[in-house]
Amino acid sequence: MDKPEISDAIERLHQRAPLVHNITNYVVMNITANALLAAGASPAMVHAVEEAGEFAGIASALVINIGTLSPRWAEAMELAASTAVKKGVPWILDPVAAGATAYRTRTAAALAKLNPSVIRGNASEIMALAGEAGGARGVDSTQGSDAARDAARHLATATGAVVAVTGAVDYITDGSRMVGIANGDAMLTRVTGTGCSATALIGAFLGAGLAPYDAAAAGLAMISIAAELALPKASGPGSFAVALIDALAMIDDGIVATRVRFR
Amino acid sequence: MDKPEISDAIERLHQRAPLVHNITNYVVMNITANALLAAGASPAMVHAVEEAGEFAGIASALVINIGTLSPRWAEAMELAASTAVKKGVPWILDPVAAGATAYRTRTAAALAKLNPSVIRGNASEIMALAGEAGGARGVDSTQGSDAARDAARHLATATGAVVAVTGAVDYITDGSRMVGIANGDAMLTRVTGTGCSATALIGAFLGAGLAPYDAAAAGLAMISIAAELALPKASGPGSFAVALIDALAMIDDGIVATRVRFR
Amino acid sequence: MDKPEISDAIERLHQRAPLVHNITNYVVMNITANALLAAGASPAMVHAVEEAGEFAGIASALVINIGTLSPRWAEAMELAASTAVKKGVPWILDPVAAGATAYRTRTAAALAKLNPSVIRGNASEIMALAGEAGGARGVDSTQGSDAARDAARHLATATGAVVAVTGAVDYITDGSRMVGIANGDAMLTRVTGTGCSATALIGAFLGAGLAPYDAAAAGLAMISIAAELALPKASGPGSFAVALIDALAMIDDGIVATRVRFR
Repeated sequence: MDKPEISDAIERLHQRAPLVHNITNYVVMNITANALLAAGASPAMVHAVEEAGEFAGIASALVINIGTLSPRWAEAMELAASTAVKKGVPWILDPVAAGATAYRTRTAAALAKLNPSVIRGNASEIMALAGEAGGARGVDSTQGSDAARDAARHLATATGAVVAVTGAVDYITDGSRMVGIANGDAMLTRVTGTGCSATALIGAFLGAGLAPYDAAAAGLAMISIAAELALPKASGPGSFAVALIDALAMIDDGIVATRVRFR
Repeated sequence: MDKPEISDAIERLHQRAPLVHNITNYVVMNITANALLAAGASPAMVHAVEEAGEFAGIASALVINIGTLSPRWAEAMELAASTAVKKGVPWILDPVAAGATAYRTRTAAALAKLNPSVIRGNASEIMALAGEAGGARGVDSTQGSDAARDAARHLATATGAVVAVTGAVDYITDGSRMVGIANGDAMLTRVTGTGCSATALIGAFLGAGLAPYDAAAAGLAMISIAAELALPKASGPGSFAVALIDALAMIDDGIVATRVRFR
Repeated sequence: MDKPEISDAIERLHQRAPLVHNITNYVVMNITANALLAAGASPAMVHAVEEAGEFAGIASALVINIGTLSPRWAEAMELAASTAVKKGVPWILDPVAAGATAYRTRTAAALAKLNPSVIRGNASEIMALAGEAGGARGVDSTQGSDAARDAARHLATATGAVVAVTGAVDYITDGSRMVGIANGDAMLTRVTGTGCSATALIGAFLGAGLAPYDAAAAGLAMISIAAELALPKASGPGSFAVALIDALAMIDDGIVATRVRFR
């Protein structure tokens, strides 16, 4: 296990309040914005090619999520990612449902080549992106995260990105180092946009100045532990989603240090 | 009254966990996805013409909702519906605000000709689609569901679809049979997307293998009874929406059998 | 202080139940629709150029919000606004993140020339629109509302619109009169879409027949006081957002009269 350095991550996020530029899907825009606001970041959703490049250049970090993909949006994603890299703005890719259709797999693969700092997906998505048959079935994974550890390592080596595979245990690797985080709860899979929010939180930590490996760990630890805090307040997935946002607003580095279970 | 067969509907939905492909409107994507997840289905929102046909072919059911319509989306809807029918995938149409503008009425009518298994709308929408003056006023009906029973029967006969009209009493007809469901609460009209979620749940039951007449009854009974369970936990429409999702996750066939009021 | 006349505003809104046509951004469509429904209005989101003009002509009021802008949507916004003015339908502009990119500032300025009844923004947005350097940083203001009072007055004079600047104190001016409203809570800045919902509520009051200066005051008083009512029921921004919708559904003119703090 290669332990990431996340001891003051949330404090740094709160102090920096990074402007996080999101080009994300319609389903999760609202929960993503609220998760980022709760965590102390300043979210903005900007997708038109007329301004996505300019905006990426002034943001602290960029989040690209291909959930409800279309050609015009893909064009803006490529423009924003390229500009971000040019300006030294870190960016993260969420290859939603890569492997489910040819168009989606192709677009995710093209984006993965544009030097993202982090790629975060479920097992099926990471395996598809690494060129393995991962059995995507819509947006949900048919594979446990354990099965995708090798694919994650290969994808990290091939792209230069830190790769995070989320599941019962989350795995983070830069191709040589690897760490698991065994927090969270299956209830996270019953609410839409929790994976996408995890991606956005990693983006916020990138924007707060953390290195990609640490930012990925901080983001996944934060949302997984927030889920644990939310669970006792929830009567089902509806109230869990509400309590999760509340928890993201009250969690601090001390709570994370006490509860995080690295593997 | 022609009673539908829904005694093990929710159990079948939980076992099958159908992949439900949605091309729906921006306003309700989040609540629709969460309603489907709570009910045990696997939702995916995919709308680009580049992949909507391919995706419809691998889904268990397809939901088309014209709420925030535009030409490019209408094109994808027609492509997805055609592919679904070709591949034997059942699909359901939600003709949001049909009758309110010429463009909307025309698009809904064109989709209704593509062999949907079910059409679900409020009274104004069903009357507009059946070619009657139903007095649409935006997205809300100006008519009670009783007034649309004849229109529903005509529309069912003309299209071959089961038609469901929702309101104080929901009516379901295949042109010859008709049943009413007298569950639910007016609070459902104070939260956006509950009608759209009802449509999506019917889609989920289609994807679980129920016949259209039974799927329509199961979906409407499930959400109406979930609303009754949610009501005592709510202090207003905000908390009602949260409790509704919680209720969709805990409701089972036994609860439905005890509470359903067929007419 | 030039006190607006809002003593029976909510009663008029409930009686009229105005059809409010929104062309707004993807992030906030759901909360906007729910805020309008909770307040007693009938929301509709319609954005295609094929129907946006026709729909604006039959609505009671039109709300235009440039949050997730793109050229095709901007075209529909201009069409809807022009039609609204022609048909005597009042409309309100929310120039989200004006000042943040050239495209956005240009589009907001073009819309502001189309005779809106009200323009509502934060300090940075109003200053950008008035041609002053207001230091936009994404969608959040870097300026307090006090700093934008002169800009608001100039913008009101230049456009003929009532201008509302929201912040710790909200200011409303028609160029000569000005009033402040010192209600609300900073928690409103931790939930996405509360500013956009404020804009939509002002639109609803316009649709209920209030004069622009009064409608702006009624909308801002309603949401600010609803926030105060929601606060004790909230454990964080997630539950606050839920309680805010509940509060919008129960607030009445008597509560507003008791609590409103004009400046």
